Order: sequence, then structure tokens, then C-alpha cells
Amino acid sequence: MTDWGQRAAALLNDLAACSEPGPGVTRLPFTPEHRAALDVLRAAMENAGLTVTLDAACTLVGRREGPAGCKTFLLGSHQDSVREGGAYDGIMGVVLPILALEKLREEGAELPFAVDVLAFADEEGVRFPTALIGSRALAGTFDPSVLDMRDDQGTALRDAMTSFGLDPAGIGALRRDPGDVLGFLETHIEQGPHLEREGEALGVVTAICGIERHQIIVTGETGHAGTLPMMGRRDALVGAAAIVSEVDRLGQQTADLRATVGALTVEPNVVNAVPRAVRLTAEFRSPDDNIRSKAGNALHDFARQVATQRSLTIDAARTYAQPAQPCNQDLSRRLSWAAKQAGAGCPALPSGATHDASAMADLCPIAMLFVRCRNGVSHKPEEFASSEDMALAISALSTFLKSIGQDVGSPG
Amino acid sequence: MTDWGQRAAALLNDLAACSEPGPGVTRLPFTPEHRAALDVLRAAMENAGLTVTLDAACTLVGRREGPAGCKTFLLGSHQDSVREGGAYDGIMGVVLPILALEKLREEGAELPFAVDVLAFADEEGVRFPTALIGSRALAGTFDPSVLDMRDDQGTALRDAMTSFGLDPAGIGALRRDPGDVLGFLETHIEQGPHLEREGEALGVVTAICGIERHQIIVTGETGHAGTLPMMGRRDALVGAAAIVSEVDRLGQQTADLRATVGALTVEPNVVNAVPRAVRLTAEFRSPDDNIRSKAGNALHDFARQVATQRSLTIDAARTYAQPAQPCNQDLSRRLSWAAKQAGAGCPALPSGATHDASAMADLCPIAMLFVRCRNGVSHKPEEFASSEDMALAISALSTFLKSIGQDVGSPG
Repeated sequence: MTDWGQRAAALLNDLAACSEPGPGVTRLPFTPEHRAALDVLRAAMENAGLTVTLDAACTLVGRREGPAGCKTFLLGSHQDSVREGGAYDGIMGVVLPILALEKLREEGAELPFAVDVLAFADEEGVRFPTALIGSRALAGTFDPSVLDMRDDQGTALRDAMTSFGLDPAGIGALRRDPGDVLGFLETHIEQGPHLEREGEALGVVTAICGIERHQIIVTGETGHAGTLPMMGRRDALVGAAAIVSEVDRLGQQTADLRATVGALTVEPNVVNAVPRAVRLTAEFRSPDDNIRSKAGNALHDFARQVATQRSLTIDAARTYAQPAQPCNQDLSRRLSWAAKQAGAGCPALPSGATHDASAMADLCPIAMLFVRCRNGVSHKPEEFASSEDMALAISALSTFLKSIGQDVGSPG
Repeated sequence: MTDWGQRAAALLNDLAACSEPGPGVTRLPFTPEHRAALDVLRAAMENAGLTVTLDAACTLVGRREGPAGCKTFLLGSHQDSVREGGAYDGIMGVVLPILALEKLREEGAELPFAVDVLAFADEEGVRFPTALIGSRALAGTFDPSVLDMRDDQGTALRDAMTSFGLDPAGIGALRRDPGDVLGFLETHIEQGPHLEREGEALGVVTAICGIERHQIIVTGETGHAGTLPMMGRRDALVGAAAIVSEVDRLGQQTADLRATVGALTVEPNVVNAVPRAVRLTAEFRSPDDNIRSKAGNALHDFARQVATQRSLTIDAARTYAQPAQPCNQDLSRRLSWAAKQAGAGCPALPSGATHDASAMADLCPIAMLFVRCRNGVSHKPEEFASSEDMALAISALSTFLKSIGQDVGSPG
């Protein structure tokens, strides 16, 4: 009997070799490493009986045909990694569906629809200051002006794609007809410790969190740390510290909210000068847009209080906002049911990170399956998912596909 | 009748012209600007009847002789400025004593001792990573190894001095005999807003604050701001923010303590990553060493609590400590009395900044006279002391000198 987990681990190992030299995996889009990964994936897809094509956005598509005139269900994720990243983020979400389809073929299962496994070129946005090219192309939301963006070496995205043998002019035609697509399922490592803490191998994603970011500039007055009395000081860093504590408090005390001050810089930043100015960022993420925007408003209110109390000037601006993307309830219920059939508990949890599924939501219903990863680590060489957990995911994916259109009982 | 305040303002104006081009005054030691300032000061000293010499440490000495075999009282401050500094810090403490001696000569006053006015080359330590050369030379605490230190251009201090016409080998012989010195009085702008807030022109310094500095490294664990749950986060910046708030609280709630976090840097310092590590400094200053070291210990205790509560590693180290330097009570009492004779209230206050007087304390009793400065500003082009306040200071200085050895009543 095939050990599907071992097969997945072996295939991911081959793909991890498609990397720039150095620690972990570095596989950027439209590079020789990308080419090598496409070759490995193409062979695996063909081995699973899929018909393989590379589209104009460089998405490798492995198609299992269905009955004439049928609709298509989509599965997949991205092939690229961050620099010195791991062997699972993205690429595992291509490998496991391929093996699930191979398993279905071994079982001789029939499906009343076609299935496409998609390996998107670029989700991380490391090489070019854009991402989600492949998923946006399918959803019809690709903005051709990004083709003029350049990488660190000055190469335009358009030229990188052309050199790779692609025709960027063909991207517009990739848009799928929503009436022909049943849905999109993305499988991904959790990138967090939730499943590990709960002792669960798999999880079903309720929603991809919305994000908002704030730029906060606290301006006070500098002075000599020895000669400026404490009373009447307008210390920008003391005001900023109160904001950092408040952002964390909001995150700790609000359900379904993640709140982080990631960046903070001080001027003039010398040991014996009272800080004049501090720039900091605040980021809120939530599967519930209302919770998220309430937190952002609470931060602005708090900043105004601090400004008044400490005679500081505080400019707080929401610089970015992206709504939450709820996963489709029917697909998620089937996915949860399928995972339980495979022997996994499959609790529901939100995704704090953005994924190709976020872009695919503009095309069709989406669902996401999370696989437990060791210590919650991603984007590092230590990233790891076990072959046992991957075997459960493959089993869940194949059962999920068979369930589409079937009755799996009422919502629990 | 001579308007001594106007004379001081005019002389300081001439000296402010001895500057590199650009905003404010930039006059670094052993430069053409320093030479120009020495020429102006020499002329002013000679005009006041003083005998002028330049010693091997580049201290310009203007001497008023006294009776044969008499002791000497010292007055003075430094000629150098910070980059883009002001026209008063340091140099005013040379100009006012010169004019006070000119005033005494006009009055025909006799003194039973000699007086030296000293214009030290370097107190700010901007050009070379050392300072207080002239005052340390007189106190016998000059360390010859600093002559090997280099400025930004790679010029060694020894070579800069030699090119200026000095003989650094002669510095060791400058040490004064403590038995020959009555005391040292430094006049300086307050560099803080205390006198201005109290509506007082002059203040007498109780002590030069001791300083201690701490380097604190908070280490947690980074992670994706979207995927890392709030619970169990080890956010280094949240721990550091608590420390910043506590340092300020200690300063606000402890009498005679100034407490400042001046520098803070975050790693990796990106919007969507939980901070892994934060380095920050904490500085405490107090005229009372016990208050200062208690604050330092309280900080270390607090850091340990934060480390435990938030599962962080916090390394806190006292990297520098300099004891407070109390001013001599008899000299300070005479100074306060003299200021009152001149019509100034002259409240007592500590000096948060270090001065040449700190080094001179190793030689003899010290005292310091503070002159009100506008908005408490120093080290900036806007630095300003009024001619009225300087006139009061000149009057106080001349009265002070006449009081030495005289009965001025019992301590109030």
C-alpha cells in the first residue's frame, strides 16, 4: 500500500533542492530554480495522470478531465519561497493535491467534474514588489501595469517573464468564467502554533484575516537628558511606549484580533538626548472586519489621549486596509467532514496570513486546509510538516473531492 | 558707566564669528576657528590687564597677579562648541570672568590672591573621543594615551596639537599644586528651563549630577504578525515599552532624579513581524549618588520581572557610572551672597550636565554659577542669554572674588 505521506516528503525533498545555494530554500519566480521546480512538478503531475500546461502567467496547471461539459474544481498554491525559507510553505499545497489525485486514480474513483491542480509562480512577492500574479490572472483582477515593476537587478517583470518563455500579453485571456468553476481549495502549513498546541494534524480555515496598517508619528521635543527637568518633558519615546503597550493590550484582550507594533525608530536616538520623534507601525488582523476596524479606531482614540496628556503631537494614519475573506461554509463543512473521515479532528481557525486563496475569492468560493507545522515556524529553514500529517491531508483532500455534490450530513 | 552686559554680548558676538560656516557656532579644538577665538580672547584679557599665556594643553590663561607668595583663584570654562551649537555654552564662562576682572580693575579693588581666567580647549569632546584635556591637565588626571585618539579625518590628537604649535609632552608639567589653589568657579548657561520658570537670572549649583548608563537587550522571538497568536507571544518590543515607561515613571516620581531612555532599536523592524530583539539605553542622573544607584537597581529588578512575566531574556548592564561632584559649600554660600548683592535671587539647583568643574574637583574646591538661558535651550543656534542677566553675573563674580577671605555672614 502506498505511503502517501512518504511520497509527499520525498517529492518535497526533491523540490527543496530546486533552490539557490544557502540555508533553507530560496526559489524566486522566473529563475532557473523555478524552472527546475516546474520540471519536478510536471513529472509528478504526469505520474498522477494529469494533463500539464504552463499558462501565460506561469501557473503550471495539471488537469484531470471530467465528463464532457462539466465544471472544474481548483486546488493549489504557490511554488515560490521567501529567501532562506522552508520546504513546505506554498509548494506543499501543490504536492498534496497532486498525490490526492494520484490516490483517486489508484482507487479508480470517478468524479462528476474536472480538477485542476495549480502551481502559481509568485505569492511571496520577494523578487518583484507585487505578488499573486497567477491567481489574479484566473480571477480577472490582474493589473497589467505591474509588468513594469523591476526587481533589485533592474529587470522588469515583463522581461523576466518573456525571458522565461512566457507571453505576458496572454495573461488577460486567462480569466476563468465563474460559471465554470466549482471552487478553490488551498492547502497550506498553518504558519502558527495553534494546531500543534491543540494536538491536531489538520485545521479548516474560517476566514483569511483582514489587515489594516497604521503609520504613527509621535513628535515631542528633544533636550539634554541631564539638564531637561522631568516635569514638562515632551518625550516622544515615552508616548510611543504607551502606544506599543496599548496595541498589545488590545490584541491580548480582544477575541479574534492580532495586534502588533513591528517597526519603531527613534530620533535622534542617542543615550543622552530626550527623544524628539518616534515613527512606529501598528498592524491589526482579524477574520472579523468589525473587530479590526474597532481596534484601529480605539488606537486613534488612545493616541489622541496620549497626545493630550503628554503634550505631544501624534499623527496616526490608516495606511492600508484589506477586508477579511470568509471561506465558503459548504466547502469548509465538507472539508471538515473529510478530515474527520481521514481520522483528523480538524478544528476551525482563521488564517492570519494572506494566501492565493484571497485572490481566488474574487473568482469562486474558497476553502483552506491547514496542516500542522513544527513550532509554528514558517519562512525559515526549520519549517517542517510531518509525513504523517501530510498523509492525513492527502486522505482528507481525496475524500473531500469525492464529497462534492454528495450529502455529508447537516452542519454540526 | 560701562554697561558690562553689553560688553559681554559684543564680545560673545565677536567670538561667535570664530566658527565654521553654517547655522550657529561650530568651533572645534585645534582648528583655525579655535585660533581665531584665542586671538579675540587674548585681546580681551589684555584689555582687562591680565597677563596671557597659552599652556601645553592649549588652555589660554589670563592672570591677574596678587601679592608675592599668594595663592590663586581660578575661573573659566571651555572655548569649544558642539557642531551647529550656540554662542554661549562654555565661552560665556570665559568672557564673564574676564569682564569681572576688568570691572575690579576699574574699581581699583585689591585682592589678597591671584586670579587666573582659563579658556579650556575642549570640553564637548566632539572632534576627538575624549574631552576635558585642559582641566584634567591642571588636576593632574590627564591620561597621555588619549593623545593617540583620532578624529573623523584620521588625525591623531597629538598631531592636531603639534600642528597647532603645542608641545603635548609638556602637559604632564601643567599639574597645579593643590596647596596653591583656592578654588575654581565655572560660570555657565543653565542648559535647562529651571531659572526661567522661576523668574531668576542666576543660580548657584549644589552639585554636578552623577551619571549612570545602562545597556539593556531584550530578546524574545519573532514570527509572522498575522499567524502568531497573541497568547504566548514573546514580543521584545512590548517588554521594552514597559521598561521605557518604568524609567520615565522612576524619573517623574523620584525627587532629584533624571531618567531617560534616549536610544532604542528594534530587530527585524518590519511592519508584519513580531519584534525579536530590542536594544535600549537608560540613563540616570542625580546630585545624590544613593538616589541614582537605587534607581539603577530598581530598573534591573523591574527588567527581571518583565523577563519573567513575558518569557523574555533581558540582559541589563550598568555600562558607565560617574559619581556626583558636590560643589564646595563655603564657595557656594559666598557665590549666592554675591549674587544677592548684585540683585539676583540665585536659587540653588543641581547641574544635570558635566562640566570642566567636574575635572577641576580633583584639584580644588569648586563652585558653579548658572545663568538663565532662553527656553532652556543649549547646543543649538537658538541658545541665548540676555545682556541683563550677564551683567548681573559679572557683578556677582566681581563681588564674589572680593568676598573671598571676608566674612559674609553665617549660612542662611
